[in-house]
Amino acid sequence: MGSKSDLTIMSAAADALQQFGIPYELTLVSPHRTPHRMVEYAEGARKRGLRVIIAGGGGAAHLPGMVAAFTTLPVIGVPINSPTSIQGLDSILSMLQMPNGVPVATVAVDGALNAAVLATQILAISNARLMDALEKYRTSLKDRTMRTIEELRKGGFQDDV
Amino acid sequence: MGSKSDLTIMSAAADALQQFGIPYELTLVSPHRTPHRMVEYAEGARKRGLRVIIAGGGGAAHLPGMVAAFTTLPVIGVPINSPTSIQGLDSILSMLQMPNGVPVATVAVDGALNAAVLATQILAISNARLMDALEKYRTSLKDRTMRTIEELRKGGFQDDV
Amino acid sequence: MGSKSDLTIMSAAADALQQFGIPYELTLVSPHRTPHRMVEYAEGARKRGLRVIIAGGGGAAHLPGMVAAFTTLPVIGVPINSPTSIQGLDSILSMLQMPNGVPVATVAVDGALNAAVLATQILAISNARLMDALEKYRTSLKDRTMRTIEELRKGGFQDDV
Amino acid sequence: MGSKSDLTIMSAAADALQQFGIPYELTLVSPHRTPHRMVEYAEGARKRGLRVIIAGGGGAAHLPGMVAAFTTLPVIGVPINSPTSIQGLDSILSMLQMPNGVPVATVAVDGALNAAVLATQILAISNARLMDALEKYRTSLKDRTMRTIEELRKGGFQDDV
Amino acid sequence: MGSKSDLTIMSAAADALQQFGIPYELTLVSPHRTPHRMVEYAEGARKRGLRVIIAGGGGAAHLPGMVAAFTTLPVIGVPINSPTSIQGLDSILSMLQMPNGVPVATVAVDGALNAAVLATQILAISNARLMDALEKYRTSLKDRTMRTIEELRKGGFQDDV
Amino acid sequence: MGSKSDLTIMSAAADALQQFGIPYELTLVSPHRTPHRMVEYAEGARKRGLRVIIAGGGGAAHLPGMVAAFTTLPVIGVPINSPTSIQGLDSILSMLQMPNGVPVATVAVDGALNAAVLATQILAISNARLMDALEKYRTSLKDRTMRTIEELRKGGFQDDV
Amino acid sequence: MGSKSDLTIMSAAADALQQFGIPYELTLVSPHRTPHRMVEYAEGARKRGLRVIIAGGGGAAHLPGMVAAFTTLPVIGVPINSPTSIQGLDSILSMLQMPNGVPVATVAVDGALNAAVLATQILAISNARLMDALEKYRTSLKDRTMRTIEELRKGGFQDDV
Amino acid sequence: MGSKSDLTIMSAAADALQQFGIPYELTLVSPHRTPHRMVEYAEGARKRGLRVIIAGGGGAAHLPGMVAAFTTLPVIGVPINSPTSIQGLDSILSMLQMPNGVPVATVAVDGALNAAVLATQILAISNARLMDALEKYRTSLKDRTMRTIEELRKGGFQDDV
Repeated sequence: MGSKSDLTIMSAAADALQQFGIPYELTLVSPHRTPHRMVEYAEGARKRGLRVIIAGGGGAAHLPGMVAAFTTLPVIGVPINSPTSIQGLDSILSMLQMPNGVPVATVAVDGALNAAVLATQILAISNARLMDALEKYRTSLKDRTMRTIEELRKGGFQDDV
Repeated sequence: MGSKSDLTIMSAAADALQQFGIPYELTLVSPHRTPHRMVEYAEGARKRGLRVIIAGGGGAAHLPGMVAAFTTLPVIGVPINSPTSIQGLDSILSMLQMPNGVPVATVAVDGALNAAVLATQILAISNARLMDALEKYRTSLKDRTMRTIEELRKGGFQDDV
Repeated sequence: MGSKSDLTIMSAAADALQQFGIPYELTLVSPHRTPHRMVEYAEGARKRGLRVIIAGGGGAAHLPGMVAAFTTLPVIGVPINSPTSIQGLDSILSMLQMPNGVPVATVAVDGALNAAVLATQILAISNARLMDALEKYRTSLKDRTMRTIEELRKGGFQDDV
Repeated sequence: MGSKSDLTIMSAAADALQQFGIPYELTLVSPHRTPHRMVEYAEGARKRGLRVIIAGGGGAAHLPGMVAAFTTLPVIGVPINSPTSIQGLDSILSMLQMPNGVPVATVAVDGALNAAVLATQILAISNARLMDALEKYRTSLKDRTMRTIEELRKGGFQDDV
Repeated sequence: MGSKSDLTIMSAAADALQQFGIPYELTLVSPHRTPHRMVEYAEGARKRGLRVIIAGGGGAAHLPGMVAAFTTLPVIGVPINSPTSIQGLDSILSMLQMPNGVPVATVAVDGALNAAVLATQILAISNARLMDALEKYRTSLKDRTMRTIEELRKGGFQDDV
Repeated sequence: MGSKSDLTIMSAAADALQQFGIPYELTLVSPHRTPHRMVEYAEGARKRGLRVIIAGGGGAAHLPGMVAAFTTLPVIGVPINSPTSIQGLDSILSMLQMPNGVPVATVAVDGALNAAVLATQILAISNARLMDALEKYRTSLKDRTMRTIEELRKGGFQDDV
Repeated sequence: MGSKSDLTIMSAAADALQQFGIPYELTLVSPHRTPHRMVEYAEGARKRGLRVIIAGGGGAAHLPGMVAAFTTLPVIGVPINSPTSIQGLDSILSMLQMPNGVPVATVAVDGALNAAVLATQILAISNARLMDALEKYRTSLKDRTMRTIEELRKGGFQDDV
Repeated sequence: MGSKSDLTIMSAAADALQQFGIPYELTLVSPHRTPHRMVEYAEGARKRGLRVIIAGGGGAAHLPGMVAAFTTLPVIGVPINSPTSIQGLDSILSMLQMPNGVPVATVAVDGALNAAVLATQILAISNARLMDALEKYRTSLKDRTMRTIEELRKGGFQDDV
């Protein structure tokens, strides 16, 4: 992530990766305040064994796009809304509208959890254990929704005409 | 893709995958006109050996998000601008703003080429040949830019103070 | 509705239908977490006797459009604003910009009450009792406005030059 | 419709209704140039036997909302994009954001065809012939998509990994 | 104004008119809940002696445009921001984008005070007392700014290099 | 107007004023290229006998707001769309969002005709001839619409159920 | 700045200039309430020894553009978000979209600090002490980020795979 | 500039600098295709004698912000509109919304000429010849406007009441 203030949003990605049993690192890499660190981080990522990079940022949000320029690993971008943001639209467009050849896989505003799920889906292509974990995760989402439906029924909500 | 009119945009993805030597299929799956086909397509994708799905669409553009709901494979969304679109913003937001648990990796408006590059990056994680191909692709992008710079110099543009 | 958090908004629709004496069911159908339930729900809706479907959702908000793909009943969409929404514009455009052949009748942001009124108007076409109820409802809206005008006058506001 | 220039868009609605065998009238009712005609039109609509009103307009686009204020029939709004429109967003928001009690069922920008389909869906609730016609229409949409897929296959597009 | 909730904004217009010594009336005229009252109000306005109409509204905000359709008096529109508004943009565009022949003089979001000043400027064209009052008002605005500058200087802010 | 390129839009205002028999002047006053001329123009306007000022501009479009700052005459702003404009939104907001005390009466994008009609409405308050002319103008708008309706009927469009 | 309420934002610019040891003045110049003061201020700025002007404003935000029209000094614009602003977009576009010949150097919404840094960068071109100060400032930004990274590590965040 | 296609826009900056007699270089530096070249270019800029950098780009448009991260020279950003851009808004926001400490001086969409004027204004602070040239340039802008006014008068446009 590009700034410590992004931690409240981005920690959801760390939590999700931990739940999926995926080793990860979480750190600050500011494209504008520590640009050389960003270059080194992105260039060295593959050699250090990273396989997917999740980059979150607010405002101009150049981190995901610039990391993508220095590595061929897939980069997932998380636009982060902040008080001086234009509803997160600035970060969405800055991540999304990358030129031909250097894509950023952009997810929802403040969508750190989904960035982690997407990273897991990417890794699961060649990892049967993760594919199983994803299926279980999907089932748990479904089960949670079904339980909520039960609660609504008990709460007196009509569910059949 | 959701409609035949998307072909002018989406064929760039097919071309790029071919160049990377990645087998692919290109077909229509309309979430609103052939919804059962979409369910079957998405649910059967993994078993049929697909590893990444690229889904393009314009307007409401529900295809990538709904395919993502029926598979745990990574889904890449390509928002397509059309004459009745709100500058592509409708499709961007419909793909990007997915709920927790079911991400879509959204790329630029009309960014079919980048969707293919992103798919290649995803597959390259566990495929050394593709990783090499990506490095060469990046080098070719750089070389093309450098050649353009040479042409600009020959064209008389000043390049040193 | 697509998520339990939508209940604070969508309960206004339930209340209004109850006031109009229209039997209804209120439940969760998540297009992304319970997609099969959504297919079954939408496909079985007409046989179960449903005549109009009101579908609310936030963010990508695919529920109304996908339900519309699986039924020929009229579907009313309620875009729901949430903290990570782009002012509700994401949900508005995702519901509104449906392709030819599969419309969603979209109402205002958080407009659950109006969705219920619209459903009542639709049913009233072939139901004289409901048409009467709607006329009375309109009269009550007018009367309430007229009473407010009276209060303003008593509060000292000038109302004649 | 509010202006003759809307005819290029709105005639698609007339064509679709004709195909569904639904009698209709198509005329101009300008909320700002013929406001009394609008009041009379809207107030007399139900007595004249109209059951659904489709109102298209560009720019400020007050027609659907004002017609809705003078009738309890369901009103479908078609936002029409024009050279001086803000991408149709002005008409979308003017139709969509109606106050509590007086909804407009808004469809896509230039979505006249979908307005006719929605009107048909509304009438089909109490009309078995129209419900059948809608099912056939949906099947024809699906068949057309399937035929396009066949053509793509013949054109040499890969459709199986 | 169209709704009692607009009073917190629109009372600033009443206060300003009072300060300028301009007789006014302040009341509710809902274009959607009391449409006939709106027609009568607008049509009778000139005969009752009104010379300028200020109409505020939120959301679809049809009031100024529809009043303008029923009178040839100048109509000033005040877009009002509300919790379910799209930042007031819906009301801005609904008032501003009037068709040829029927203008609305639109002012800033929540700009009730400026609506009153504009009304005063309009009346002042043929009223020397009001023109004087406007000059004094402008001078008072300038003086207030100059006093604030003095306070800033006393507060230690540097004002000369 | 602020630039000669605005003439294609603004000449519609001149034509309309001529039709209403209102003497006018049409000239260039650039707030950024001839700022002193703008100050002199605005400050001298009332003394020279001007009663209403119509100011059109594109992009940043400061002309109406700055003219308003130097005169107490009512100022009507016409946002002009241009190839490098953001759909005219830049000019709309720059004219509309004036601070308290100095309003601009903003009309539609490229709405020069409506600016002239609004100016006529303002002048008609104290000019019976103009008020009559406006009534006739409104009648002519209505008559033109009615004639178009006749043509549509002759063209075979159904107009009665 | 154009209004005292802008002080909470603009004081960050004053603080930064003080830290860089750059003499400055901070005062109110309202383009609409004290337009003559603005003309004098802008025209006299260079003679009084000013070398860069930072102008902040909200809403229509004409201050930077109009100051730029009356001086050839570089003018930096700070769009200020306010409760009645459209997310600051109104001020951004009003400052940014200046016509050819009269630029405003626009920075981020509420970006007063960055305006001061930009002013320092401009002055540093011909001032070695300021260039040094900027280098140190950049180093301090980097150091602060590196210290935050250390804190995150101590807080238990994983930083190596 | 980031891409050769930007040349049609950016050449206006080169032309203007030439007219002001300011030596310049014009070349391609792609932040995503030649990221190392960008780092070297930006880091070496000051030593090579550059004093201001103008960076134009479309879409994600990271060039100005990233160049700014690697130099303390002032960086002027030119957002470039392109067929797949969101009206240039993506590039505007990506340049404008830079984080504290690293500003980009953003000018209008396609505003290459103004970027050159701004650069000249910046250099003119410590260069009397350039300051003179700017004064003459402003006078020429004014003169051209005055000549256009003369032409309008000859063309028969009324210019006095």
